[in-house]
Amino acid sequence: MDERGLHRLIGTIIDPERLEDDCAVIPCGDLLMVASTDMLHETTDFPAGMTDWQVGWMAVAVTLSDVASMGAAPGQVLLAVGLDRPERLQEIMVGARDCCVAAGAELVGGDLDAHRELTLVSTGLGTVAPEHLVRRRGARPGDVIAVTGPLGEAEAALVGYDHHRKELLEPQPRTKEGEILGRAGVSAMMDISDGLALSLYDLLAVNDCGFSVDTARLPLPAGVPEDEARELALYGGGDFELLFSAPPALLPVPGVEAHVIGEVIPEWVVLADGEPLDRRGYLHEWNG
Amino acid sequence: MDERGLHRLIGTIIDPERLEDDCAVIPCGDLLMVASTDMLHETTDFPAGMTDWQVGWMAVAVTLSDVASMGAAPGQVLLAVGLDRPERLQEIMVGARDCCVAAGAELVGGDLDAHRELTLVSTGLGTVAPEHLVRRRGARPGDVIAVTGPLGEAEAALVGYDHHRKELLEPQPRTKEGEILGRAGVSAMMDISDGLALSLYDLLAVNDCGFSVDTARLPLPAGVPEDEARELALYGGGDFELLFSAPPALLPVPGVEAHVIGEVIPEWVVLADGEPLDRRGYLHEWNG
Repeated sequence: MDERGLHRLIGTIIDPERLEDDCAVIPCGDLLMVASTDMLHETTDFPAGMTDWQVGWMAVAVTLSDVASMGAAPGQVLLAVGLDRPERLQEIMVGARDCCVAAGAELVGGDLDAHRELTLVSTGLGTVAPEHLVRRRGARPGDVIAVTGPLGEAEAALVGYDHHRKELLEPQPRTKEGEILGRAGVSAMMDISDGLALSLYDLLAVNDCGFSVDTARLPLPAGVPEDEARELALYGGGDFELLFSAPPALLPVPGVEAHVIGEVIPEWVVLADGEPLDRRGYLHEWNG
Repeated sequence: MDERGLHRLIGTIIDPERLEDDCAVIPCGDLLMVASTDMLHETTDFPAGMTDWQVGWMAVAVTLSDVASMGAAPGQVLLAVGLDRPERLQEIMVGARDCCVAAGAELVGGDLDAHRELTLVSTGLGTVAPEHLVRRRGARPGDVIAVTGPLGEAEAALVGYDHHRKELLEPQPRTKEGEILGRAGVSAMMDISDGLALSLYDLLAVNDCGFSVDTARLPLPAGVPEDEARELALYGGGDFELLFSAPPALLPVPGVEAHVIGEVIPEWVVLADGEPLDRRGYLHEWNG
């Protein structure tokens, strides 16, 4: 069974509408609060050679990326640390704090536990005016599809293109871009942490329209042969760019580097160059 | 190095005032939001024989107990699940949801990961009017010290008193009591998850006064010889009662079963029956 199968099971226990987006949405005075929680642990999520500072940075980056994908301004982060060796704590916490500071968020608390495998769970909170909230649902035929930066760089590093190590190990959450795109009025948005193809299928699952990508327009990782680069851009995980749809007239949005990669179509299907796109990418798997 | 030593280190990296309480406090319109995150995992936190439903229940109970300790009303819970075997998920999620429902909270989201050791991290959010927020800091000499129920029951079950298994495995977070006590105006509050003695020392660390307990007044676990029961009540972990201080005239508070166990004193010391109390209880330890 894979992660998305288990998500369907969860949808029978808690309100399935709650599961559609990267964050939960909570009333907060005149604003909405968005909240996301993400677990990372050593054997699955931290590539060999990663420093503890980078471990802390990444733990915060993944959750702030979720906050950004809702159009919200980053606010507070909580970090639960299951620590295998106490001497790792300092650098992890400094990395986490530095990522918060870089994004304009504050590390406000957490929990500390002894664990045989280093395990970090970050929870990110942000706020957004109701009219600027962006969900995965909302794409309309005729909208363009766009991303905020190159895709496949993290996976390129994993397969040996060492000049992309920094993108793999120190992902930059698109917090500024998310907030600007929310205010600009994009129609649907999410982040791409499991790869572009799976993300497009995630959008498909909650919209009544489809998504058609022109692979020649994908922003590719530099210094990688083109065929391989396109494969990495479609199916590689670990990127934290935003994927969004918007009426064509909305672009360009000042302050956001956006690459149009396709369009929203009436048919309920995901296409790449006119053919159905493979539904594959990064998935947690259990041998169950 | 133990948990509290590492907490001091964390206080050099993030605002130490943020670390004083059971929850972080965040602006939320005219209200305050409180937020707490807690990690539990199989080898440390789930006693043998615990069902998956109880695992899910407990994961939520510990974080809602933190929310209650601030005087806040429980709101939303996020649950990150690092799952060793996929067939465990359903009962864990049902237990988590049932604890939310029992407390008047909603399970609004989470994260799912494959992990070789079952690891749960719950994040609880709640809201409170600024004038009803209760912190650990605020005790005043002359206040009484009180708890919301029997102490040492969870530890009694761990040492073989099976009639206390339910208190160990299905702790009841004092959410109703926390909110009522906040509105009533108690002066300081926390929950007692690591034992009464350590909790009193935690209160001592952030107050300029001390705490004097009369052990004859401790509400003890039923069916345990008195000397052993008193030891369990002072040093046993796993209880989720609230510990608070209040002006004597404030008690009784309608709707809250409160047991007065001592008083706040001007001297900066923790006493039991007039003697300094041992500073021991449940602490995570690393062999580092």
